[in-house]
Amino acid sequence: MAQRHLDPMAGPVAGDALAAYLQAQATEFLRALRQHRETGGAAANGTEEAVDAARALRRSARRISGTLHTFRPLLDEGWCEGMRPELAWLSGTLAREHAYGARLERLLAALHRLSGSSAFPAQATDPDTSTGPRATQLAPEKSNLTVGAAKAGALLERQLTLARTRAHSAALQALGSSRFHAVADSVAVLASEVPLAPTATRADLKPLAAAAEDRLGDAVGGLPLITAGHPYNAEALVHGLTADTAPQPQDAPWHQVRLLLRLHRYAREVLHGDENPVNVRLLSAGKALNRHRDAAEAAAAAASAARTPRIAPATAYALGVLHADQRHEVEAARFAFQRAWLRETVGTP
Amino acid sequence: MAQRHLDPMAGPVAGDALAAYLQAQATEFLRALRQHRETGGAAANGTEEAVDAARALRRSARRISGTLHTFRPLLDEGWCEGMRPELAWLSGTLAREHAYGARLERLLAALHRLSGSSAFPAQATDPDTSTGPRATQLAPEKSNLTVGAAKAGALLERQLTLARTRAHSAALQALGSSRFHAVADSVAVLASEVPLAPTATRADLKPLAAAAEDRLGDAVGGLPLITAGHPYNAEALVHGLTADTAPQPQDAPWHQVRLLLRLHRYAREVLHGDENPVNVRLLSAGKALNRHRDAAEAAAAAASAARTPRIAPATAYALGVLHADQRHEVEAARFAFQRAWLRETVGTP
Repeated sequence: MAQRHLDPMAGPVAGDALAAYLQAQATEFLRALRQHRETGGAAANGTEEAVDAARALRRSARRISGTLHTFRPLLDEGWCEGMRPELAWLSGTLAREHAYGARLERLLAALHRLSGSSAFPAQATDPDTSTGPRATQLAPEKSNLTVGAAKAGALLERQLTLARTRAHSAALQALGSSRFHAVADSVAVLASEVPLAPTATRADLKPLAAAAEDRLGDAVGGLPLITAGHPYNAEALVHGLTADTAPQPQDAPWHQVRLLLRLHRYAREVLHGDENPVNVRLLSAGKALNRHRDAAEAAAAAASAARTPRIAPATAYALGVLHADQRHEVEAARFAFQRAWLRETVGTP
Repeated sequence: MAQRHLDPMAGPVAGDALAAYLQAQATEFLRALRQHRETGGAAANGTEEAVDAARALRRSARRISGTLHTFRPLLDEGWCEGMRPELAWLSGTLAREHAYGARLERLLAALHRLSGSSAFPAQATDPDTSTGPRATQLAPEKSNLTVGAAKAGALLERQLTLARTRAHSAALQALGSSRFHAVADSVAVLASEVPLAPTATRADLKPLAAAAEDRLGDAVGGLPLITAGHPYNAEALVHGLTADTAPQPQDAPWHQVRLLLRLHRYAREVLHGDENPVNVRLLSAGKALNRHRDAAEAAAAAASAARTPRIAPATAYALGVLHADQRHEVEAARFAFQRAWLRETVGTP
């Protein structure tokens, strides 16, 4: 390990680096799990610490899962195959609650921006008030909202808060399930002993990390980057009024690149350990793709809310404006990704 | 005049160049008026020739009016003061019919684009079918439109076709009025003899043209060009959901620059005559500002249609998407203007 620290490019013994990374992530997982339990993660609206703990839990689960995927030839095959879907189930279940909360926050912020207000509605971030439908409480904030915008906000808040509450219950149920306990047990084993394949110590991590990078490169190569690089190309809103509004098929390749970029980042973490240089390009590209995903899902939520029966035309109008606004955010995110991605390739600073 | 042709920069005798330009425009006005009468301009949906004639009529009226404005110290003051409002009334009246038609065309094209269709609805350009409300005839075209988009299209078609028909009647009435005959008589006089001020032949056109350019420069200096130069700044849709949707106060300075750019262009035409070099920068900047105006007015029309009583929520939703789409066109046009305007200043080709 000392040699690796001195020269990270010299090709570390594969098993060591991989095991160290997985053990560190497993330890982090267990720490976050303990913190989550201690800080009231069970309450519908946890403290800031509980939110942090849930984030850390998702973060380490994703890293373990991604690493098992990229470096599976170096690990015990049967163990990998059994572990990965369980980790995916767990991080997916935990992510949903967060996603609904963030989506509501994004949509309410957009409604306020579209109403020419820079003020952010307090209730979107106030944990005391984010647990149940509270449509009427939008009223004090709506001074500069039209009736339609206020009603659209209230409708979205009702729907997404309900979804979030359900996701929270599902997450709680998951964390108390025997299925989860089996995952936690496996991670606990991982923290002390990584089930390496017999060949692991002689193999090299680099070809596997390079393969992950190649998969990313291929997927990016399939993206319409030339179009995305032209500002205001109006691509993201095409199909904005077709019958099926969500999910939009044109988004799928971008979502795929987002996942592959994440795998590439994790593989770099395995290779470079703590000396992992901050790669601004990957960071910006990843942020752009997160924004792309968030905006796409927010746009779909606005479209879905507009299909609620018996809403007022003014509400539907506001939701239409909101949907289009978020689809333009999608387009803006693609532009940002294109810029970030080509930065290194083109060679400009 | 021969000397001016050989060296246009040598400072032509002011009266000559100004008189020649005004006479040419007046002659063009009279020719277009004759053509308009001969080619069935009186019919609600004229032939292509009648449309061309109306365009030529507006074009020359704008040029005469703009030239009287910029070079008024060189012209008979009382005559100028009397003539300009009459020309403004005339070109405004003639422009409205065209504007409603173009707005409907733009909005229907956007609805089809938003529905993922590249096909353009035939009825928007077919003169046989653009004279009255024909909502039901959208049906054969709406195969890939949602019910909301189809209904929104039908509603816009009804409203804008009605407005266009009224504007056509108003234009016809104007062209038959004694007020118009007085304008036409004045233009006929102008075609043979330009009422120059006593000082005109000794004065120079350049300072007056430079003043017009300065007014344009000052107005552009007041535009938020730095913001406009950042793609996806989301400025144009701010206030998209405030109670007063149209006209948006943020658009006014851009509309003003559009008018000043036009005056600058006409002043250049007076100065350089037929040798007027095509200035790509001014051309692109002007096109961007036209697009800005058209998109702003289309967005307002969509917002206004959404306030129609008793429309279905799906219709209102589609109009909301359409409104936001056109406001993003507004933003895109500002970006295009910024690019075009800074092209020469920055010195890049």
